[in-house]
Amino acid sequence: MPHNERIGSTANSINDIIQALKVAQNIIILPHKFIDGDGLCSAMALGLALESLNKKVAVSIEEEEIPNTLNFTSANRLVQKKASIDMMVDLAIAIDLGDLERLGSRADIYENAPNKMNIDHHITNSIDADLKLVNSEAAACGEIVYEILKSMDISIDKNIAECLYIAIATDTGGFRFSNTTQKTHHIIAELVSTGIDVANISHRVFDIATYTKIKLMGKTIENMEILNNKAVAFTAIPYDFINELMPSVDDFEGLVNIGRNIEGVEVSVLLKENEPGVFKGSMRTNKYVDAAKISSAFNGGGHKRAAGFSIQGDLKEVRGILLTEITKELSEHKPHTQENS
Amino acid sequence: MPHNERIGSTANSINDIIQALKVAQNIIILPHKFIDGDGLCSAMALGLALESLNKKVAVSIEEEEIPNTLNFTSANRLVQKKASIDMMVDLAIAIDLGDLERLGSRADIYENAPNKMNIDHHITNSIDADLKLVNSEAAACGEIVYEILKSMDISIDKNIAECLYIAIATDTGGFRFSNTTQKTHHIIAELVSTGIDVANISHRVFDIATYTKIKLMGKTIENMEILNNKAVAFTAIPYDFINELMPSVDDFEGLVNIGRNIEGVEVSVLLKENEPGVFKGSMRTNKYVDAAKISSAFNGGGHKRAAGFSIQGDLKEVRGILLTEITKELSEHKPHTQENS
Repeated sequence: MPHNERIGSTANSINDIIQALKVAQNIIILPHKFIDGDGLCSAMALGLALESLNKKVAVSIEEEEIPNTLNFTSANRLVQKKASIDMMVDLAIAIDLGDLERLGSRADIYENAPNKMNIDHHITNSIDADLKLVNSEAAACGEIVYEILKSMDISIDKNIAECLYIAIATDTGGFRFSNTTQKTHHIIAELVSTGIDVANISHRVFDIATYTKIKLMGKTIENMEILNNKAVAFTAIPYDFINELMPSVDDFEGLVNIGRNIEGVEVSVLLKENEPGVFKGSMRTNKYVDAAKISSAFNGGGHKRAAGFSIQGDLKEVRGILLTEITKELSEHKPHTQENS
Repeated sequence: MPHNERIGSTANSINDIIQALKVAQNIIILPHKFIDGDGLCSAMALGLALESLNKKVAVSIEEEEIPNTLNFTSANRLVQKKASIDMMVDLAIAIDLGDLERLGSRADIYENAPNKMNIDHHITNSIDADLKLVNSEAAACGEIVYEILKSMDISIDKNIAECLYIAIATDTGGFRFSNTTQKTHHIIAELVSTGIDVANISHRVFDIATYTKIKLMGKTIENMEILNNKAVAFTAIPYDFINELMPSVDDFEGLVNIGRNIEGVEVSVLLKENEPGVFKGSMRTNKYVDAAKISSAFNGGGHKRAAGFSIQGDLKEVRGILLTEITKELSEHKPHTQENS
């Protein structure tokens, strides 16, 4: 498959990639910081596959904890923090990133390696590499690694399949995002056929939550107002609550979607009071309101359907200012019919 | 494929089924009452396919509302309540049920039809039919209907694909339950290739919730206690709250899983105070506690991991009685290691 056709100057054929992987003996694989399912698990899948060819392999992550949702596979034994890496690297592979900044403190490992490879699926990719395989149409790097393993005739055992499954399942939101393709499901079919425990993996990855996160969900709902003829869900998590609970960054993930997913809601806003009177806002919209436009009025930005901003002041006052802007956008852009779109 | 090998006396070959579908001109398709995604959407997919062969088709449902999560496809035009059926039926197809009782008030439509067909995937199936296609290994009736359409060389257009997708996605919990197979994903791959809007369908089916349901979630969390060294999540929704909110049955779905999905929790209990002092209980367990056994002490039953029961009294007293039973089971069966299973 011509994975490399869609990128610029340093695109290589899959045969070049395979050749380089075959030659290298000591390989370090580097996913991005703020590790996620695709970054970690596509790195581990590639690592397991290269180990099966008797290579020495490490997956090096930033000084951070692997989230519990990803910390249960046998492949996690490949993972090492930078400080404990003790290896003469002859090939460094930056995976699931298009910008070296995302390697954080590990950028030098990549930069100092005698051979550099970049495997990625982001649309913008500025990384310098000796060998580059970027396919922005792949739903996940897990799909690209799957293609590499197939091209190398490496047997996909249960451990590798589990990693690839998690990589692809997480980056497609459980096969629900629009990046999910026919090919995604064909790959997943093959992974499932190895006998991986789909129910257990899915439960671990998608269902399990910390009690802290559940308490944040409860507060998000408790403080939620449904306004503007049910088109707006507005909620705030106060400083005192956060300060007492000491949540992790992960615990806040997805909270703004609770409001977004209520029937009829167009705009969902979640304010997180990080310091007394200092709010970090998240905004999600469903169909027609431009979240980035509203957020730009508050030192923020993002995409049409997802944006963030910062705002200071008394909650009541902040709420009023935000709702004025949202109401303006709503009334300007409200379509004549909102059904069936 | 030998779909019929796994059932008893009235199993027919797929060729018999196809022959009967080809001969019939006026066909009524009957999914079970308390309609769900697989029942409704496998019925509608079959209906659309038969319409494309110039048959007259109706999908007849019970006197009930189609949940909002399923009420958005163009195929919904096939659906009729019993009272409005005006058709000389020559073939009635009971789909996604193994017991005629599940047709509710529509059992007579089936019983009076000159030709009766039953398409199902339940393990126990007691339905009398002239033609019977039961495959308990199919994750959803949607998979069986897919096989029928393929065998009949009926082209699966976008509208049919949308129905089959919803049927299969709902009965597999979004491809997360253990009934999901390699075959499931191969079928879904083909459905996705028709260009259905996976993101929009998934959002409608899985994400959107009523505000009432969100408020119930909030109350479930607000009243939740984490007990027994974090192994038990216990919560109750009081009568006054329910009485004011007037939720539908659907709004309660999944609430007990909030506790079940908290890290470390083995037993999750949700009490719904239907009348003052009258509680309907739901229990879910994760790994080793037998929910059915505990529930049987309270006029209830179910499965090892999911059971229900009834209990009356003052909430404080009821809570004490339940926790005593749960604590007993927990201490008797607690495994030496709970990790990695």
